[in-house]
Amino acid sequence: MFAHNKRLQYTVRVRECNPALANLMLEQFGGPQGELAAACRYFTQALAEDDPGRKDMLLDIATEELSHLEVIGTIVAMLNKGAKGQLAEATDSEAELFRSLQGAGNDSHVTQVLYGGGPALTNSGGQLWNAGYIDSIGEPTADLRSNIAAEARAKIVYERLIAVTDDPGVKEALGFLMTREIAHQRSFEKALYSISPNFPPGKLPGKPEFASVYYNMSQGEGDMRGPWNDNKIFLYESDRERQCA
Amino acid sequence: MFAHNKRLQYTVRVRECNPALANLMLEQFGGPQGELAAACRYFTQALAEDDPGRKDMLLDIATEELSHLEVIGTIVAMLNKGAKGQLAEATDSEAELFRSLQGAGNDSHVTQVLYGGGPALTNSGGQLWNAGYIDSIGEPTADLRSNIAAEARAKIVYERLIAVTDDPGVKEALGFLMTREIAHQRSFEKALYSISPNFPPGKLPGKPEFASVYYNMSQGEGDMRGPWNDNKIFLYESDRERQCA
Amino acid sequence: MFAHNKRLQYTVRVRECNPALANLMLEQFGGPQGELAAACRYFTQALAEDDPGRKDMLLDIATEELSHLEVIGTIVAMLNKGAKGQLAEATDSEAELFRSLQGAGNDSHVTQVLYGGGPALTNSGGQLWNAGYIDSIGEPTADLRSNIAAEARAKIVYERLIAVTDDPGVKEALGFLMTREIAHQRSFEKALYSISPNFPPGKLPGKPEFASVYYNMSQGEGDMRGPWNDNKIFLYESDRERQCA
Amino acid sequence: MFAHNKRLQYTVRVRECNPALANLMLEQFGGPQGELAAACRYFTQALAEDDPGRKDMLLDIATEELSHLEVIGTIVAMLNKGAKGQLAEATDSEAELFRSLQGAGNDSHVTQVLYGGGPALTNSGGQLWNAGYIDSIGEPTADLRSNIAAEARAKIVYERLIAVTDDPGVKEALGFLMTREIAHQRSFEKALYSISPNFPPGKLPGKPEFASVYYNMSQGEGDMRGPWNDNKIFLYESDRERQCA
Amino acid sequence: MFAHNKRLQYTVRVRECNPALANLMLEQFGGPQGELAAACRYFTQALAEDDPGRKDMLLDIATEELSHLEVIGTIVAMLNKGAKGQLAEATDSEAELFRSLQGAGNDSHVTQVLYGGGPALTNSGGQLWNAGYIDSIGEPTADLRSNIAAEARAKIVYERLIAVTDDPGVKEALGFLMTREIAHQRSFEKALYSISPNFPPGKLPGKPEFASVYYNMSQGEGDMRGPWNDNKIFLYESDRERQCA
Amino acid sequence: MFAHNKRLQYTVRVRECNPALANLMLEQFGGPQGELAAACRYFTQALAEDDPGRKDMLLDIATEELSHLEVIGTIVAMLNKGAKGQLAEATDSEAELFRSLQGAGNDSHVTQVLYGGGPALTNSGGQLWNAGYIDSIGEPTADLRSNIAAEARAKIVYERLIAVTDDPGVKEALGFLMTREIAHQRSFEKALYSISPNFPPGKLPGKPEFASVYYNMSQGEGDMRGPWNDNKIFLYESDRERQCA
Ligand SMILES: [Ca+2]
Ligand SMILES: [Ca+2]
Ligand SMILES: [Ca+2]
Ligand SMILES: [Ca+2]
Ligand SMILES: [Ca+2]
Ligand SMILES: [Ca+2]
Ligand SMILES: [Ca+2]
Ligand SMILES: [Ca+2]
Ligand SMILES: [Ca+2]
Ligand SMILES: [Ca+2]
Ligand SMILES: [Mn+2]
Ligand SMILES: [Mn+2]
Ligand SMILES: [Mn+2]
Ligand SMILES: [Mn+2]
Ligand SMILES: [Mn+2]
Ligand SMILES: [Mn+2]
Ligand SMILES: [Mn+2]
Ligand SMILES: [Mn+2]
Ligand SMILES: [Mn+2]
Ligand SMILES: [Mn+2]
Ligand SMILES: [Mn+2]
Ligand SMILES: [Mn+2]
Repeated sequence: MFAHNKRLQYTVRVRECNPALANLMLEQFGGPQGELAAACRYFTQALAEDDPGRKDMLLDIATEELSHLEVIGTIVAMLNKGAKGQLAEATDSEAELFRSLQGAGNDSHVTQVLYGGGPALTNSGGQLWNAGYIDSIGEPTADLRSNIAAEARAKIVYERLIAVTDDPGVKEALGFLMTREIAHQRSFEKALYSISPNFPPGKLPGKPEFASVYYNMSQGEGDMRGPWNDNKIFLYESDRERQCA
Repeated sequence: MFAHNKRLQYTVRVRECNPALANLMLEQFGGPQGELAAACRYFTQALAEDDPGRKDMLLDIATEELSHLEVIGTIVAMLNKGAKGQLAEATDSEAELFRSLQGAGNDSHVTQVLYGGGPALTNSGGQLWNAGYIDSIGEPTADLRSNIAAEARAKIVYERLIAVTDDPGVKEALGFLMTREIAHQRSFEKALYSISPNFPPGKLPGKPEFASVYYNMSQGEGDMRGPWNDNKIFLYESDRERQCA
Repeated sequence: MFAHNKRLQYTVRVRECNPALANLMLEQFGGPQGELAAACRYFTQALAEDDPGRKDMLLDIATEELSHLEVIGTIVAMLNKGAKGQLAEATDSEAELFRSLQGAGNDSHVTQVLYGGGPALTNSGGQLWNAGYIDSIGEPTADLRSNIAAEARAKIVYERLIAVTDDPGVKEALGFLMTREIAHQRSFEKALYSISPNFPPGKLPGKPEFASVYYNMSQGEGDMRGPWNDNKIFLYESDRERQCA
Repeated sequence: MFAHNKRLQYTVRVRECNPALANLMLEQFGGPQGELAAACRYFTQALAEDDPGRKDMLLDIATEELSHLEVIGTIVAMLNKGAKGQLAEATDSEAELFRSLQGAGNDSHVTQVLYGGGPALTNSGGQLWNAGYIDSIGEPTADLRSNIAAEARAKIVYERLIAVTDDPGVKEALGFLMTREIAHQRSFEKALYSISPNFPPGKLPGKPEFASVYYNMSQGEGDMRGPWNDNKIFLYESDRERQCA
Repeated sequence: MFAHNKRLQYTVRVRECNPALANLMLEQFGGPQGELAAACRYFTQALAEDDPGRKDMLLDIATEELSHLEVIGTIVAMLNKGAKGQLAEATDSEAELFRSLQGAGNDSHVTQVLYGGGPALTNSGGQLWNAGYIDSIGEPTADLRSNIAAEARAKIVYERLIAVTDDPGVKEALGFLMTREIAHQRSFEKALYSISPNFPPGKLPGKPEFASVYYNMSQGEGDMRGPWNDNKIFLYESDRERQCA
Repeated sequence: MFAHNKRLQYTVRVRECNPALANLMLEQFGGPQGELAAACRYFTQALAEDDPGRKDMLLDIATEELSHLEVIGTIVAMLNKGAKGQLAEATDSEAELFRSLQGAGNDSHVTQVLYGGGPALTNSGGQLWNAGYIDSIGEPTADLRSNIAAEARAKIVYERLIAVTDDPGVKEALGFLMTREIAHQRSFEKALYSISPNFPPGKLPGKPEFASVYYNMSQGEGDMRGPWNDNKIFLYESDRERQCA
């Protein structure tokens, strides 16, 4: 059962109304690497998880992600505040409003006209959030890897958002959110490594004759060898006939 | 900021493993009238709401919907428990497993094979949840009406789910969830009526010459008069020429 | 059975080619609160409706919404007319065309390049229309509430579109369309109130012990009381333990 | 502007309640080759069409497709009638209702529980209709070809639906609907051939050196020659080096 | 089985970094008329095709479309190259980066922030690719017509993209890709005409009494006659009563 | 540039026509963990990758995934073969066809009626494939982790499919495909570990004060400690006040 406390997990200050920046922030509200996706990911896994330790961890982190969703959504709402008023109060002339919608860049016109300036469950390009973003399949050695990857992606998107704003309050809040994804990634890694064996994931062993072959399917100038196809581990197969198993 | 308490808002007991029933229950987990949609609806509205009373109400109810999501998801997980084991442990023969997936009816095969028996963010037919289900537009006299309607729809879907199960524990939990939607509907109605005027919604008045016309656009045997087009309020226009304004 | 008459329900005049404005208008063509959604909503309800009065009303209004779809789509096509020619005839230099696509703002580049300037079944941000926008569930006391809310939302979006254009012909046509949604909302309200009882919707009564509780789930500075949670109707429950039913 | 007449374009008789058949019929209501898709396809093209003859044709056929949508939706509603009553009235025991939902096959459980037996804008598998099904691009020599193909596909799906029912009333109505798609295909072909030249579509000629080459990209046992790659028209290129242009 | 050769099917040169142009190019990477759609269309048809000649043709062309996907995706990546670096290296000030994202127009902000400058499986407006774009139904006389139409549409979109760029390298590569669609269209037409009879598609004949009627459903100023409804082939029915079959 | 060889990467034998099994197999054709998703994932990453070694690896594996797509699609087509004939030839009575569609279980009715028995780009529940399944973001330390996770998930889904069939030919082919995902996972792990440092992913360091905190957000009976939140690495914070950063 959830409880809500009026305080934000991280206090947000915003320098000035900026609908275009608000729109970019939607990426982490209703985008594929955003906080709703994170919360849904861990919460659905938690409900089906039988292991008490992992279940607790998933609920701890899912609850924190909901709190992040509140932080990022609050940033969006604050950055849109003035714009919201403008449209609702019709204090400007039509031409000015039109210019401000167009000039705001990106898809902030969608946010203003359709959602009235509120945070929408879309990415920054207006694409509706959908549950295809959630890749939980109910097997911990796979799901934990999915979670590690999801945290890594979220960290990168925060990093990119930080790079495009110079509003110090927004920058700080994004820095907090970004850092938490690092901490989550670390927890999921520890949880994965505490399952042994965890490779290959699941129950069935692979067929030995195919498990260590690297098929060189793309050939020509640019063929390279590296740790991912070296002879110590892999049988490197370039023969087109023998690539047919 | 959210906190999570290990107790469910409503304690759930389930008579026996029943993946087909689990699948029907997904309607209120990841379906359009389900608890994720409810929570997202109120939470996104709350973040953009300036009125402190409505903001508090929206957060109160959003938080409860998250707690409902946990209840219904727990029901799904419990009803799938045995089935989950079967597939993972491969205790049955392939033919038996295949029959059980097929015989379970509905789309429970998706739940089992793709999601490993965990609650999926899909409706009972496997349709992925998407944010097009959320119709918040950032204007309270519209959004409150949307919320009233959403609670009414959720109440009906719970009623239908209650009608198809005779598992007493599931029936009881569904009864609790259904009743809470009634209470929410009542709160949203009170909140709407406390805004005055609330009709027409928004700022602009309608054009008087069109605001009380009822265009009888579908004509023939079956044309009816009723409170929705009677002469006290409406000008009833059947003339095809004059229907062109 | 439908018949089509070459005259528009409301005659449209457009001052000048304006692809960016055309693009904003798509919100009510292929957006969630737009005319296709309205027509589909009432038409699907009508087909399953057994009550002859409501069936007639739903068909009357569905048919009008199709006529609105034609009006708004015609506005989009007229606002795009010149732009359409430009691209097809290649009368401008590439650089000029590119600038005009970019400068037009919003997603008008999608409309031009992908749809050739025709009205597309997307919202103003390019999101494809999908039937998740339609929330009909086949129970009149719920569906009428959904319709009331849908009309309220459409009214608001028209209001916002009116606020951003100073083309008098477009403004007038939008004013007509907006006003008709007010009239529809009124009809649906009358139809709902003519069903008695209509609350709670459906057949099953709620469980009395939960039907009038207001769970104060979000607590802290900002907790408020109001008609939606006052003591005359609701038992206001702030105790975290007793919030577990 | 649209008008609606209470009579169906084709009178429908249905032998008995059959929710599983109703569900299959959804394919042509809310499926990709269905009547909503057809109506939307021609209507959006009509609005942007400058040629008066084609515009009239597109409106004529769009209006007929809306009338087909009514016919197929009415079939769905009639086939679901009893089932709708059962669930709403709760006349059966829960166990019987559950069995009937499960036994009805397909996704009729979705139609019953979520949509209350009304025709839903989904295909027979519960996939929500989306505007990605509409491929209009605003150039007649392409769009007419798209329409010819769409009619051909719709004809085939009707044929398959006819093959799986022995209800004579449903069979007859499907036969009417199927035949009309044949007539539409013929009209669109005539309209295409009346544009000259219509190949290649659009304005720009192709680059002569690539316009008549057939690249034999898939090689091995099964390589075939035929009218689509014969030497009279095509330069047949099997040399992997020369396939790089 | 596929093999990949490091050379592109058509060598691409790009004048300068241009994220806004890159974004427009996405239309043919992850858009409805783009190369992924083309490849998926022909490949899925090929797998189910029993006729050896058509199967070979479908595989030949599917394989070429994959090679086109590589060409257009490479163009996107090259046009984004500098922009990618900017964001990742954070060499610019935040304000400059923000301006460049905003000024780049269109949805290039999505491509940069969410996808890091790589080619995304979206159209130029950020709409995610979905398999609803693929209309294969497993009957050659319908599917070949669908393919003819798809090639025509792709040709037109390339033409429009050519019209908006003056980068000679991009223009040339687009010209190659456009021309290949012309060649494909020709092959599919030849393949269709080699099936006899191919009209009506499928097995069932139409009902003679409805197969040659043209229902004049849209009436008024603008009614036109033409090859698509002339008396030699069609019975032209304007009588509203007789339009009810 | 791609080339296609008529031989399958793994020769498939199928015991008998089985549309219900065919339908389950769609999970790995057009499902989220399926081969199209795998191919698209690696191919889009490859196009934007600057590092020559990783680019080669991504192209090698993308090409193999396309070859897997062919194998699984061929299985679907073979399992549907007889069923396809039945419907097209109408050799059975309608009633028998109807029963066989219904009895086949799952969503095979969609495959038969809509797609004519061909492999569809849907999952086993009929959900259309969409590009939201692809999570590439253009940063190798994130994308490689995403790929590792994707391979782990695909491995598990194959394992589950193997568990439900006793057709030895299908089982063997699935075993091959499953094993290859193990090999791919290994390659991606080697590629990730060859980047140093790879944690945290990206450029920006985290804020030290938040990078090693574990917020115990879900409290109550069931709180657990483990490697993911132990004191050696993490500061375990249960105080609700101090959880507000
Ligand atoms: Ca290689
Ligand atoms: Ca199903
Ligand atoms: Ca389904
Ligand atoms: Ca009427
Ligand atoms: Ca945009
Ligand atoms: Ca409160
Ligand atoms: Ca060949
Ligand atoms: Ca967009
Ligand atoms: Ca006409
Ligand atoms: Ca805990
Ligand atoms: Mn987070
Ligand atoms: Mn996280
Ligand atoms: Mn609820
Ligand atoms: Mn509620
Ligand atoms: Mn309207
Ligand atoms: Mn209306
Ligand atoms: Mn039709
Ligand atoms: Mn038709
Ligand atoms: Mn191509
Ligand atoms: Mn082509
Ligand atoms: Mn694979
Ligand atoms: Mn793989």
